[in-house]
Amino acid sequence: MLDVFCQISSLPLGYSHPDLMAVVTDPKNASVSAARPALVFFPNMDYPEKLEKLVESVAPKGLKHMQTMMCGACANEFALKQSFIRYRHRERGGLPTEEDLASAKYNQAPGTTNYAVLSFEGGFHGRTYACLSLTHSKAIHKVDIPAENWPFAPFPRLKYPLKEFETENRAEENRCLAKVREIIDERKQAGGPVAAVIVEPIQAEGGDFHATPYFFRNLQQICKETGAAFIVDEVQTCCGATGNLWAHEAWDLPEAPDFVTFSKKLISGGYFFKKEFEPKLGLRIANTWMGDPSKVLLMEAVVDVVKRDRLLELTRESGAHLQAGLEDIQNKYPQHLHSTRGAATFCAINTTDSALLPKLAANMRDKGVLVGTCGTNTLRFRPALIFQPHHADIVLDTLESAVKEL
Amino acid sequence: MLDVFCQISSLPLGYSHPDLMAVVTDPKNASVSAARPALVFFPNMDYPEKLEKLVESVAPKGLKHMQTMMCGACANEFALKQSFIRYRHRERGGLPTEEDLASAKYNQAPGTTNYAVLSFEGGFHGRTYACLSLTHSKAIHKVDIPAENWPFAPFPRLKYPLKEFETENRAEENRCLAKVREIIDERKQAGGPVAAVIVEPIQAEGGDFHATPYFFRNLQQICKETGAAFIVDEVQTCCGATGNLWAHEAWDLPEAPDFVTFSKKLISGGYFFKKEFEPKLGLRIANTWMGDPSKVLLMEAVVDVVKRDRLLELTRESGAHLQAGLEDIQNKYPQHLHSTRGAATFCAINTTDSALLPKLAANMRDKGVLVGTCGTNTLRFRPALIFQPHHADIVLDTLESAVKEL
Repeated sequence: MLDVFCQISSLPLGYSHPDLMAVVTDPKNASVSAARPALVFFPNMDYPEKLEKLVESVAPKGLKHMQTMMCGACANEFALKQSFIRYRHRERGGLPTEEDLASAKYNQAPGTTNYAVLSFEGGFHGRTYACLSLTHSKAIHKVDIPAENWPFAPFPRLKYPLKEFETENRAEENRCLAKVREIIDERKQAGGPVAAVIVEPIQAEGGDFHATPYFFRNLQQICKETGAAFIVDEVQTCCGATGNLWAHEAWDLPEAPDFVTFSKKLISGGYFFKKEFEPKLGLRIANTWMGDPSKVLLMEAVVDVVKRDRLLELTRESGAHLQAGLEDIQNKYPQHLHSTRGAATFCAINTTDSALLPKLAANMRDKGVLVGTCGTNTLRFRPALIFQPHHADIVLDTLESAVKEL
Repeated sequence: MLDVFCQISSLPLGYSHPDLMAVVTDPKNASVSAARPALVFFPNMDYPEKLEKLVESVAPKGLKHMQTMMCGACANEFALKQSFIRYRHRERGGLPTEEDLASAKYNQAPGTTNYAVLSFEGGFHGRTYACLSLTHSKAIHKVDIPAENWPFAPFPRLKYPLKEFETENRAEENRCLAKVREIIDERKQAGGPVAAVIVEPIQAEGGDFHATPYFFRNLQQICKETGAAFIVDEVQTCCGATGNLWAHEAWDLPEAPDFVTFSKKLISGGYFFKKEFEPKLGLRIANTWMGDPSKVLLMEAVVDVVKRDRLLELTRESGAHLQAGLEDIQNKYPQHLHSTRGAATFCAINTTDSALLPKLAANMRDKGVLVGTCGTNTLRFRPALIFQPHHADIVLDTLESAVKEL
C-alpha cells in the first residue's frame, strides 16, 4: 500500500522513519514520557534552552515566540485567547481592573468581553467549542451543538486553470475581501468587535480551496487597519508539503502574521506569535501540560531531517511531477476530472460529480494507493515529505487505471 | 526533594517508575510514537481489542464505553458535545433533519442549539473555550475572554470538623441543590435548557472543597428528572488518590454517572459514557488523533501497577496517617491552620490568612517538601500513589517546622 493520505496529513516522514525511531527508543528520552512534566510550572532545567534552539530552527520569518500545545484545536483555542487579551489590553489601555476580574469570574461584563472572531465559509479549525464555531466545512461536525454567533466571510472560489481566469479570480478575491471589511465594520459599530481573523492558507477539509498571495496580503492589511489579530492556521499546511516549511511563506507578506498555529506533521501542536501579543501577566495562557516534551523531541527531529535531507526541494520536485501528471489525466478524462491545483505535493483534483468521488477513492485503495477526500468532490493528496517522483508515477498510474473503471 | 504536588497531581507513580520506564523503552511500543495513527480513521488492527481490555480493567461500575482524548479539557469538551447531541436527539425524536444540517453549518438555528451547561462556583474544568466558560476558580484565567452565558450554582462550602456541623452542612447542601433545580427550571422556561451539569467530586483548583455523597446522589437525581446529562469531571480525582480508583465510587450512586471524564494520573485523557449517549451517526465525535496510543500504553501500565501493588489500600492507609497528623498540627497551631479535610491522600488544610499560604508553601519547599496550593488559602497534598506512611511523616514534620517559622 502506498499511503498518500498519511494519517490525515499528519505523518511528516512516513512510517518507521529511522530518525524518529531513534528518538523514540533513545533511553535518555524515556524519563519525560514516563514522568511527564507539567510545563506550566515545572519544565526541566534544560527545556527553555532547548525550545530556543527549536524556535530558531523552525520559526516563520519575523516570529520569535512559540507556545507548545497538545494539538491543532488547542493551538487555535489559545491563539484566540491571546488575541482577545491583547485586543482588550489595547482598548482599555492597560491591565485588567478589579472590576474586570470580579465580573470575569462569573462570565459577566466588563471582565467578560463580547469580542468576535471572523472565519471563512468552508474553513476548518478544529472540533473544540470555539474552533467548531469557526468551522464551516461539514454540517455533521456541528449540528445540535451550540455555537458562538461569530461572523464568517466567503473564501475565494477560484476557477482553474488559473491563467485562463485571472480577471474573474481577482474579482472573486476582491468580493471576499470587501465582505471581510464590511463585517468587521458592522461588528465594530454593533459593539462586538472582531478581535481576530482566522484563516487557513489552503482550506483543506473544506475541499482544497486556494487563494492567491494577493488575497492574503490584503487580508493582513485589513487586520492591521482594524486591529484584529491575523491568525494563520497552518495545522495542515505546516512542515513542508506546500514546498515551503510554512505555506504562508509563498505570500511574500510585508510582515509576519500575528499568529501561526501548527500541529499534525510537526508532531507537537502549538503556535508562534508576535511579541506584542504576549500577555503582560502570568497564568493567562496556561494549563497543566502546555504541550508535551516527548512530542517536542520528535518535532526537533522532523525539522532536522527536513533540512538535512533537503525534503523541501524534493517535495517541490515531486509535487511538480505529480501536478503535471494530474493535469495530463484530467485532460484525457474531462468527463470525470477537473481543477488540478496545489502547492508542491499538497495538491488535489476534483471529480465532475460528487458521486464519483467515493468510487474513485475506493478503486485507488483497492489498487494499493490510499488517498484522501475532502469537501464534496475533491480527491486530496497528502503524501509524506519523503515522497519521490517515482512514487508520483505510481499514484498517477493508479489514478488513471481507477478512472478508467468509473 | 519529596514531591507531594507531583506535576499538579498528574504523576500516578512518581518519577522513573520502573514499570513505566519499561513501557517507554520497549522497542515494540516505538512505532505508535514514531508514526502516530489518526485514530478517527486508522486505528491499528489490534487496537479495538486492546481498548476493550483496558475498559474492562478501569471503567467505573456501570460504564462500558470509553472515548480517549488528549487531555482533560478535551475530554470535557467532547463529553459536552455528546450531551448536546443526545439532548437534541431526544427533544427532536430522531436524527438531524436537512434543515438542521443546512443551518448548523452557519451557526444558525434550528441546527445550532442554544443549550446551556450548568457548572458550580469555584469549579475548574479546563482552559479551552467551553471549559473556561464553566470554570469559576480564578479570574485571571478568564478575564478579557468572551464566554458562554451559562449558569452556575453554588457548590457546598462545608464546615469542619464535619461531625460538629452536620446540621449546618446538610442545610448548605440543600441550599445548593435547590439552586440547581431553580436554575434548570428557569432555563427550561426561558427556552435555553440545561443539557448537562458538570461537577468535580472535589473542587480541586478552586480550594479543595468537598461535598457529601448526599449532595451528589441528589444532584444525579435532579439531572435524571430534568434530562440533563450528569457529567462527573474526574480529571484530578481519577486513578486512586481518593482511595478509590474513581472518587465517585464513594457516593454509592444508584446508577453510574452519564459521563466520567479523566486525564492527569491516567496519562491519557478521555471519558466514559453510558451507551444511550452514543451518537447514532458517525463523525460527530471525531478529530484527527482522538487521543494517543502511546499514552494509552502508559495508562494500561499505571492501572496494572495500581492493582498489582495494591496501591489503593496503601493510599488509604497513608492518607489516614497524613490526615490524622494534619489534624494534630492544626490543633497545636489553630492560629495558623484549620479545616483539615480530604479523601485518602487527596487532602488539604487551610491557613487562617491567605497571606500565610505562599510563605508556608515556600518554607516547606525550602525544607525539601514540594506542596501545592489552591483557592485563596489552601495547602493541597497530591502525592503519587506510591506515597507511604513514612513519607507522610516527613511531610508532617516539615509542615510543623515550617509553621513554627511563620
